[in-house]
Amino acid sequence: MRTVHFTAETSADGVIERDFTVGEIPGVLWSPASGPERAPLVLMGHGGGTHKKWPAMAGRAHRLVTGGGFHVAVIDAPAHGSRPRTAYDEQEIAELYRARAAGEPEGPVVVRYNAQLAERAVPEWRRTLDALQELPEIGADGPVGYYGLNMGTAIGVPLAAVEPRISAAVFGLHWPDALAETAQRITIPIAFMLQWDDEHIPRDSGLALFDAFASKKKTLHANAGRHKEHPRFEADSAVRFFVRHLGRDVTSPVG
Amino acid sequence: MRTVHFTAETSADGVIERDFTVGEIPGVLWSPASGPERAPLVLMGHGGGTHKKWPAMAGRAHRLVTGGGFHVAVIDAPAHGSRPRTAYDEQEIAELYRARAAGEPEGPVVVRYNAQLAERAVPEWRRTLDALQELPEIGADGPVGYYGLNMGTAIGVPLAAVEPRISAAVFGLHWPDALAETAQRITIPIAFMLQWDDEHIPRDSGLALFDAFASKKKTLHANAGRHKEHPRFEADSAVRFFVRHLGRDVTSPVG
Repeated sequence: MRTVHFTAETSADGVIERDFTVGEIPGVLWSPASGPERAPLVLMGHGGGTHKKWPAMAGRAHRLVTGGGFHVAVIDAPAHGSRPRTAYDEQEIAELYRARAAGEPEGPVVVRYNAQLAERAVPEWRRTLDALQELPEIGADGPVGYYGLNMGTAIGVPLAAVEPRISAAVFGLHWPDALAETAQRITIPIAFMLQWDDEHIPRDSGLALFDAFASKKKTLHANAGRHKEHPRFEADSAVRFFVRHLGRDVTSPVG
Repeated sequence: MRTVHFTAETSADGVIERDFTVGEIPGVLWSPASGPERAPLVLMGHGGGTHKKWPAMAGRAHRLVTGGGFHVAVIDAPAHGSRPRTAYDEQEIAELYRARAAGEPEGPVVVRYNAQLAERAVPEWRRTLDALQELPEIGADGPVGYYGLNMGTAIGVPLAAVEPRISAAVFGLHWPDALAETAQRITIPIAFMLQWDDEHIPRDSGLALFDAFASKKKTLHANAGRHKEHPRFEADSAVRFFVRHLGRDVTSPVG
C-alpha cells in the first residue's frame, strides 16, 4: 500500500509524465527525460476546486523539471479530481457556492473547509512521500521541497510543520486564521506569495501569515493585482528558490 | 559638456568597464565584451556614503551585463566618491553621525538630506543619460531602466517621475515621507525591495512607499533580516525583472 504503482506514462519537451497511485491516492510524477538519475523532489499542492493535472500544476511542473532538474509530484487532494466526496464535502462546497453567489466573504468557509481537508491530506502526503522515496531516481535521503498556494498552502503548512523531510517551501494566498499558529513552528526557508489587491484575503491578513513563519530565511513576493492575477513569472522565481535551497539546477547537477 | 569622455578601460569576465566623465560628473559604464552592438541601458544609483564602484555596484553591474546583456551606468552622487562636498553636505553628514552615535533614529536626517541630494542629482542623471544615448552601442531610442536602493531610491523616484525615457525601475529600502507623493505619479513597472526586520525603516513605512506607486505592474520583495541584510540573490531577480521589461537577455538578443 506504500508502493508507487505507475499506471500511465507520456513524454513531451524533455519531461516524462507518469500517473501513479499509492493505495487509493492518485498522483502524477513529472521527471527529467534525461540527466543524472537521482534528483531532488518537489511536492506540489493544487488549489481548491482543481486537481493534480490542472494547467497551473502542469505548467509549474514543467518549469521545475526543465529549469531545476527536479522531480515533481502532485496528488489529488481529498474530494478533488477523481476522488470521492463525503456528505461533509458536498455541504461545504455548497456553502462556498452559496456565499459566493450571495456576495458574502468566502474566507470563513474556505478557512474552515481547507483546515478539515488538511487533516485528511497530511497523512496521505506522508504516505505518498514514503512511497516516492522508494524510487531509485528519488531515494530516501534526497532533498524535498513543497510548493502550494491557496488550498495548497492550507495543506502544506501543517504538512511542513510535521514532516522533517521537507526542507524548503513556497506558500501563499491564504488567510492566517487556521495557519498562523502552525506557521510559528516552521523554521525552514520559505517564499510566500501574496496579491496586493486580493479581493478575498485582506492585505493585513496575508502579511500576518507571512510574518508568522519562524523561518530565518523567508521572502515575501507581493504583486499588484487581484486574487487570481498571481503572475506566471513567480513560477520561475519558485524554480530559483528551490535551486538555492535544494541544491540543484540543470547547469550544475548534484544528483 | 553633454558628451561622454572615456578616461580608463579595463576588462574582466566578459565585462568591459569604462570610467567616464560627463562635464564634472564622474561615472562608470559596464558593457558586454561581446554580443550585438546595441543593448538596453540600466542606470544604477548607489547608496548613501558609498560611490559608483562600491562592491555592491560592481557586483550588480556584472550580473546585469553577463545575465541580461545590458549596459550599466553608475555616476557618483553629489558629495559622494571623488566629488566635492559643500558646507551643507558636511553639516548633514555630521548630523547623521551624531544621531547614529546617540542611538537616535537616523530616518529624519537621511530623508531630509537625501531629498536635497536628489534635487542636485536628478538633472545630473538626465545630462548623463543624454550623453550616454549618443553612444552607438546605447542609442537614443533604446529601453532604459533604473536600479537603486537606499539613497539610490531617494534619487531614483524623483528621477523616474520626470524622466520618460526610464521604462522600468527597481527601488527599495527607503522611507515614504519625502517620496510617496512622487511615487503616486509613477506608472512604469517597478520592483520594490524591503527588509522585513529593518531596524531603521519601520515595516509599515516601507510597505506604504511600495503601496504609493501607481504602477499596475509592481512587485514587492520583502526579505527577513535587518537593513543591511538585503540578500544578494535579489540582484539576480533584478536582472530577470529588467529582462522582462527592457526586452533582452543573453540567450535571445533583441539588439
